[in-house]
Amino acid sequence: MTFPFPADSPDKFHEECGVFGIFDYPDAAAVAALGLHALQHRGQASAGIVSFDGEQFHPHRALGLVGDTFGDADTIARLAGRAAIGHNRYATTGETAVRNIQPLYADYAFGGLALCHNGNLTNARYLRESLVKDGSLFQSTTDTEVIQHLIANARTANAASPRLIDRVIAALRQVEGAYSLVAMSQNELIGARDPLGVRPLVLGKLAGAWVLASETCALDIMGATYEREVAPGEIVVIDGDGLHSHQPHPPMPARPCIFEFIYFARPDSTMEGTNVYQARKSIGAELAKETPVDADLVVPVPDSGVPAAIGYAAAAGLPFELGLIRNHYVGRTFIEPTDEIRHLGVKLKHNANAGELAGKSVILVDDSIVRGTTSQKIVEMVRRAGAREVHVRISSPPTMNPCFYGIATPSREELLAASHDVEAIRDLIGADSLSFISIDGLYRALGNEARNGAMPQYCDACFTGDYPTALTDRDGGNTSQLSLLSNLSS
Amino acid sequence: MTFPFPADSPDKFHEECGVFGIFDYPDAAAVAALGLHALQHRGQASAGIVSFDGEQFHPHRALGLVGDTFGDADTIARLAGRAAIGHNRYATTGETAVRNIQPLYADYAFGGLALCHNGNLTNARYLRESLVKDGSLFQSTTDTEVIQHLIANARTANAASPRLIDRVIAALRQVEGAYSLVAMSQNELIGARDPLGVRPLVLGKLAGAWVLASETCALDIMGATYEREVAPGEIVVIDGDGLHSHQPHPPMPARPCIFEFIYFARPDSTMEGTNVYQARKSIGAELAKETPVDADLVVPVPDSGVPAAIGYAAAAGLPFELGLIRNHYVGRTFIEPTDEIRHLGVKLKHNANAGELAGKSVILVDDSIVRGTTSQKIVEMVRRAGAREVHVRISSPPTMNPCFYGIATPSREELLAASHDVEAIRDLIGADSLSFISIDGLYRALGNEARNGAMPQYCDACFTGDYPTALTDRDGGNTSQLSLLSNLSS
Amino acid sequence: MTFPFPADSPDKFHEECGVFGIFDYPDAAAVAALGLHALQHRGQASAGIVSFDGEQFHPHRALGLVGDTFGDADTIARLAGRAAIGHNRYATTGETAVRNIQPLYADYAFGGLALCHNGNLTNARYLRESLVKDGSLFQSTTDTEVIQHLIANARTANAASPRLIDRVIAALRQVEGAYSLVAMSQNELIGARDPLGVRPLVLGKLAGAWVLASETCALDIMGATYEREVAPGEIVVIDGDGLHSHQPHPPMPARPCIFEFIYFARPDSTMEGTNVYQARKSIGAELAKETPVDADLVVPVPDSGVPAAIGYAAAAGLPFELGLIRNHYVGRTFIEPTDEIRHLGVKLKHNANAGELAGKSVILVDDSIVRGTTSQKIVEMVRRAGAREVHVRISSPPTMNPCFYGIATPSREELLAASHDVEAIRDLIGADSLSFISIDGLYRALGNEARNGAMPQYCDACFTGDYPTALTDRDGGNTSQLSLLSNLSS
Amino acid sequence: MTFPFPADSPDKFHEECGVFGIFDYPDAAAVAALGLHALQHRGQASAGIVSFDGEQFHPHRALGLVGDTFGDADTIARLAGRAAIGHNRYATTGETAVRNIQPLYADYAFGGLALCHNGNLTNARYLRESLVKDGSLFQSTTDTEVIQHLIANARTANAASPRLIDRVIAALRQVEGAYSLVAMSQNELIGARDPLGVRPLVLGKLAGAWVLASETCALDIMGATYEREVAPGEIVVIDGDGLHSHQPHPPMPARPCIFEFIYFARPDSTMEGTNVYQARKSIGAELAKETPVDADLVVPVPDSGVPAAIGYAAAAGLPFELGLIRNHYVGRTFIEPTDEIRHLGVKLKHNANAGELAGKSVILVDDSIVRGTTSQKIVEMVRRAGAREVHVRISSPPTMNPCFYGIATPSREELLAASHDVEAIRDLIGADSLSFISIDGLYRALGNEARNGAMPQYCDACFTGDYPTALTDRDGGNTSQLSLLSNLSS
Repeated sequence: MTFPFPADSPDKFHEECGVFGIFDYPDAAAVAALGLHALQHRGQASAGIVSFDGEQFHPHRALGLVGDTFGDADTIARLAGRAAIGHNRYATTGETAVRNIQPLYADYAFGGLALCHNGNLTNARYLRESLVKDGSLFQSTTDTEVIQHLIANARTANAASPRLIDRVIAALRQVEGAYSLVAMSQNELIGARDPLGVRPLVLGKLAGAWVLASETCALDIMGATYEREVAPGEIVVIDGDGLHSHQPHPPMPARPCIFEFIYFARPDSTMEGTNVYQARKSIGAELAKETPVDADLVVPVPDSGVPAAIGYAAAAGLPFELGLIRNHYVGRTFIEPTDEIRHLGVKLKHNANAGELAGKSVILVDDSIVRGTTSQKIVEMVRRAGAREVHVRISSPPTMNPCFYGIATPSREELLAASHDVEAIRDLIGADSLSFISIDGLYRALGNEARNGAMPQYCDACFTGDYPTALTDRDGGNTSQLSLLSNLSS
Repeated sequence: MTFPFPADSPDKFHEECGVFGIFDYPDAAAVAALGLHALQHRGQASAGIVSFDGEQFHPHRALGLVGDTFGDADTIARLAGRAAIGHNRYATTGETAVRNIQPLYADYAFGGLALCHNGNLTNARYLRESLVKDGSLFQSTTDTEVIQHLIANARTANAASPRLIDRVIAALRQVEGAYSLVAMSQNELIGARDPLGVRPLVLGKLAGAWVLASETCALDIMGATYEREVAPGEIVVIDGDGLHSHQPHPPMPARPCIFEFIYFARPDSTMEGTNVYQARKSIGAELAKETPVDADLVVPVPDSGVPAAIGYAAAAGLPFELGLIRNHYVGRTFIEPTDEIRHLGVKLKHNANAGELAGKSVILVDDSIVRGTTSQKIVEMVRRAGAREVHVRISSPPTMNPCFYGIATPSREELLAASHDVEAIRDLIGADSLSFISIDGLYRALGNEARNGAMPQYCDACFTGDYPTALTDRDGGNTSQLSLLSNLSS
Repeated sequence: MTFPFPADSPDKFHEECGVFGIFDYPDAAAVAALGLHALQHRGQASAGIVSFDGEQFHPHRALGLVGDTFGDADTIARLAGRAAIGHNRYATTGETAVRNIQPLYADYAFGGLALCHNGNLTNARYLRESLVKDGSLFQSTTDTEVIQHLIANARTANAASPRLIDRVIAALRQVEGAYSLVAMSQNELIGARDPLGVRPLVLGKLAGAWVLASETCALDIMGATYEREVAPGEIVVIDGDGLHSHQPHPPMPARPCIFEFIYFARPDSTMEGTNVYQARKSIGAELAKETPVDADLVVPVPDSGVPAAIGYAAAAGLPFELGLIRNHYVGRTFIEPTDEIRHLGVKLKHNANAGELAGKSVILVDDSIVRGTTSQKIVEMVRRAGAREVHVRISSPPTMNPCFYGIATPSREELLAASHDVEAIRDLIGADSLSFISIDGLYRALGNEARNGAMPQYCDACFTGDYPTALTDRDGGNTSQLSLLSNLSS
Repeated sequence: MTFPFPADSPDKFHEECGVFGIFDYPDAAAVAALGLHALQHRGQASAGIVSFDGEQFHPHRALGLVGDTFGDADTIARLAGRAAIGHNRYATTGETAVRNIQPLYADYAFGGLALCHNGNLTNARYLRESLVKDGSLFQSTTDTEVIQHLIANARTANAASPRLIDRVIAALRQVEGAYSLVAMSQNELIGARDPLGVRPLVLGKLAGAWVLASETCALDIMGATYEREVAPGEIVVIDGDGLHSHQPHPPMPARPCIFEFIYFARPDSTMEGTNVYQARKSIGAELAKETPVDADLVVPVPDSGVPAAIGYAAAAGLPFELGLIRNHYVGRTFIEPTDEIRHLGVKLKHNANAGELAGKSVILVDDSIVRGTTSQKIVEMVRRAGAREVHVRISSPPTMNPCFYGIATPSREELLAASHDVEAIRDLIGADSLSFISIDGLYRALGNEARNGAMPQYCDACFTGDYPTALTDRDGGNTSQLSLLSNLSS
């Protein structure tokens, strides 16, 4: 059983990044590579590690998978030192892509600092423009570079000899949005999470050494113990004296991303105290309760629909069956060369298992419908394999709004549910019936009585449009001026 | 849900090849690439296609996946023509590997012939030595080249102007072992299966054009219809006049490879009339009947153990749960760089899902135990995740004998079951209990009353040592002379 | 006849960069690629071009030769626009190398600016440290980035709305050292040369469009006409209204690099009004006059010694002969794999032409002796080929001092002439006689009566130690603080 | 001074191969790599080495330069053994090219044999067809494979246990054409030259070990001594007992290729007792005598025209000057991306040195005119640089006939001199005067009184059409049958 791989699926939302850090452990870069490998599902386009050996910072960043970039002993050996941070990225192409691979590094008056984060600032353009006016030079188009400059230009209480933590606090007080940030100076490893805790970040220990990671699965791979989550708004500074916690922001109720539970996180991770696999089974079970249907079997859309389908099947008392088989060997550039071939309606990634489907009434369980194109193909494939009826059940509410917090989502125009009601979607994908879990059902499955309307327990803006932070760049009166993030082609 | 990928698993038997052919269809090479993509699980090391455009043969062969080698439109465009054959290979490294990538091609007196096969000849060395003595030059170390030379030197009835089919028959009458062969001349597509039908080969039709493929999943990907299996011992010649069947060998009871049902074939393929996924569920159900155990849940070893685990869970009335999560992003060269890291006992490929396993009595279902190293690691991982008891159930009998028919198996010394009884294996892998399905149970699950001792219905030599053909190269009195297949380093 | 290729010769001084710019011409990037190709001898390690299409800047930079990076039409097509600047670099390895490939680009408050230069600032560390203290972030280790930040932070007269030229002037007034700079904003192409004119920069016109280039050979390749040199200390701004000249620095006598005439520049370039090939012949002739010797023939050390050898032979009335043959196919990584092979004393690059040398008294003409290792090998090779006598004549004075103005020179310890007198060098390289041209002879050959002691006509610091600018970074009292340019490994 | 690089010049004849062999020397493959490096001018497209370590043959062959393929210690280390042969090839593209890289290897009844050659058989098609009829399979399209099969099928006197030399003799007695062959069995190194000695092959010794090489420059690079040429028609067998010479062919007057002296060979090689550089100077001097012209200076077309220009200038008493500068950094794929750029008439490879040419009457010396396109461009370039008059002198007679002996020549239609007389060529290339050396002048320059008409001292068929061997494949009555060498695309 495999876990969901967003990057393989163009018709999905995509987590944009994974982060990792370790302090005072031998071969820290090798450990970071393992951590990033376990977080590979959070970003497959590029990976980077910066280590510090007590004297120098050693960066290595490249397009490609962690195993491709950091799989050989020589590369790891060059990344000397007992401290390292690393980053996975789901991203775009071209020279810009290379320049944007994190962690970023810069020399400061106080020394070197390497920095990376998962998330997205909602006032990055505004801050960038203001920094450029004051003489800051930007060489990438990342939010991370905004934070770099804010740290460099921080005005702190003890201006003469500010501590790094004071600079970081001054910088983070200026940003809005969602971020889980990991940074490394010559003396410290730093972790920070935005005040609402939208993006995840956990603390672990490996033989006494502190570890920071996006998810607990990155602790498991190396046998590190899970200690706790970095709290929303918390900044942890790990140095030779241990861990120091700072809470520079006014406290507010947490709003972790609900989609991590539905799709992004690895099923074997534990997030906010909940095992992700079990959360997905609960959602499947709740879905079965909300939208039962008389059918012969429950078939997951592999791989991401599997846990919810198991939960659905168990709750519905129906057999769980592999009615769709996925081929993981899809090359990146498998091009249909001619119209003749395109006409065949080739299915490179999935095949219907006709032996199991023929003559049956089938419940197909998937985690979401984004553009609908994949759902349409799969329903048709299942029908061609002889299914008598095809009932589609989706383990999330309709996705109607783009995410501004670090998830790659299509524009609102491309989100099928933004312009079609459920019946119209059902008709379009060709299913006999279609149901999405309700928003309250989703909250119930996650252990709440219902969504707390005024102050929901999660960020669910992709379903509800209820964005928990200001969106300065989107809403700013001066958007026309801000329209160009950079004059550089990207 | 993904299907099993042998090449990812060093502790498995490995299918060695997949074959494909199509005759008289536009963009034949593109279709062949699709077919090979669907057969990727039968060989990931290299892929090759030869097309014929009415005047010239166009070969392209390379190390790597089908999608990497044939994914771009330019490569496919160079492989012009309405006929093509292709081959996947699971293989070794070095220049030799490149020289051995199939299909092979040679110019004959009658014109060009491209040739590839899945399987292994058991008298290849003997034939090769004899051909070399008569002046034949060998440039690869493949069995396929032996067949090429036998065709070139065939002595046929109508010596003056032999038909190609006469040459092929004369050649195949000299070989022993297992083969599913696909060949293409300027006028014909040829398919041939060994007299016992050990390796699979099916016939399909795509918009009227004949297709040959190792498995039906290669028909599904392009929407071709399944017509029938090539019969054991049959040679089919497809030309402008249609399909001509030849049965040059004396008839004998078929002995298809039983391991195709257990592990090699894709679960969505239909083989010998049986859906492979359903066969695996039946094996799991039979295993549950034979070796029941009181436990809380059934967990598959992903990905290959999934169908049998579903069958086991359903038969045992226990929940089927994803207690192990597999990371598909394992790079080929993820090297543990230092002792420090190796000491961590890193699990790059699997992680135990502690949330589901803690405190539970777990039945782990896998398809086979070869060397036992993976089983040992997984049992330990499940225990560390908090499982109370770990019961291992294997959906095949103990694998005690090497395969000589085209499957990469370790030497007898490396086969754990060849030297350890079940209790010793249980002890070694650290399980609370261990059971393999019985050989009769396996036959029952495949729809037989039991194994027909004198004349079994399948080739099951890896379990029983009952090899259905002569093994000339192994048994030849002159083995010392035959010890060197070639003086070339490989 | 080939011209000198510094990068092929580890025992030479190396020019570090070539620059090019063009404004308002179709396919400007393609033209820039041609210009850089003609300047390839000034830097073979990397090449970069940034174009501007009226809306966006398009960068492309890579390690490797111009032809490798910009040889394909697709790459050039992506670099759209009618303005472009480009840069060749002779440089080091690793990720740092990639980050340092020029032109650099940054977004400023006034828009984008791409920037590159040939040369070296002698107060770059000092400026960098001061900029970092004020919050500037450095991501490369190039001097160019210092200039970028100086421009961003320039305090200009009209602070509210400074013109770019004012910012550039304010920036360049702070730097010391040698530079030929080419920059491109959204409206302008800018060229600037340091006040002493140490490094070359010329102006040309291509069908009405202004061109900037390090040497005239870059004009010739595209059929552009040579207009004039950019004057020492001059800044030219080329925009839609034509060329505007600025002279912001106090005037001072020019000091162009004398080594450009000896070795760096292409022989077909014209520099300071002098054809370089003819200058080298004159030096050879002067050398013959200063240090005549009775011999049979004059042999150049290929390729750089050829013009001086032709001049020497003509002046001495001796035959000019190819006594050494050079193999240009030397791979970058031709490693001598074993002691056995190393012991052979292999000559990968040169071979003595014994047919011409045997029994002869030979005058070997080379342009310089840096470490002496190559000279030693070549003298020995000529002797083994049977030469009766070997007289070495060098067309430059002894190189005794490192260059701080953009030329890669070994440290003083590695400069043979810094610690050995001529007789000691002769003994070490095994020649029968050795002479260097005198410093006054060199000046005479270049058309002067002699070196003007107090105010020499060229920068000849590598021979005389008479550095024409301050050397703040070298001489600063606070060198210990400045010892680390960056904490980043390079 | 560099020597001629045919592959850089599309408007030249091209030598097709270089060969090398060494027997009983440590690290034989490393030595072979050095030898091939020195012979790189004879073939730049691919290189291969096969070594033998006493038990196994180790092949490595790849497209690219010797330094790229064999420059790293790892590759060489894998090619273990004290015997090795190697081959350079100037060749075509595609998979066929890879398959054709030599040395070829095959297992024979008597053991392994690696084989390569320089040259071309003029009855290869005829032999190939006959071999295929008898059951031989061909996998490349090389002549070398024909020889392989002839050796495998050789009918020898002592048929029961033939010596390898008997097989080789039997094979070579069947071939016609030109070849210098090097082969290696488990016990022997073999060298063979065709009965006319058209292609060169020399014997050297390296610390007692025998060496075979196309030219003496391959001996020089490793410090091996030159022993003698392999005689025309001679076969040398080098084994543990030393060198054994065989002369199986009837003796006939030698006809070495005269173009080796004009252009192919490296100027520092000695061939047939003559130093190639001196031969070229003599040709230049003879050319000056035959076709004097009143002019200011003599300018070589670099690099191949240099030696003849030196000879011409000395004989004419005129200065030798670098009026054309060559840029060696031409990438393989420097594409002119747009019409706009093409229109510039860019000269990527040469630049006229205007400082030397302006106002002068110039004699341009080149080695040959093949298609005339390059000459036309260069004359125009020299005129644009201001030359008053341009007189072209060619150090070979007009090339009017294709070569069938291993030189890549354009078809007769493309040979300018085949259809244009000297005056027409002069007009086409735009020169003020044009002269070729006469055929007798060429012979005189090489030390003969004149060409011996009935029995010339060299093969000069490219000038005279007097082919010294039968041309079976060209002249065979059955050419229509032979028109297809293979059905494989190439």
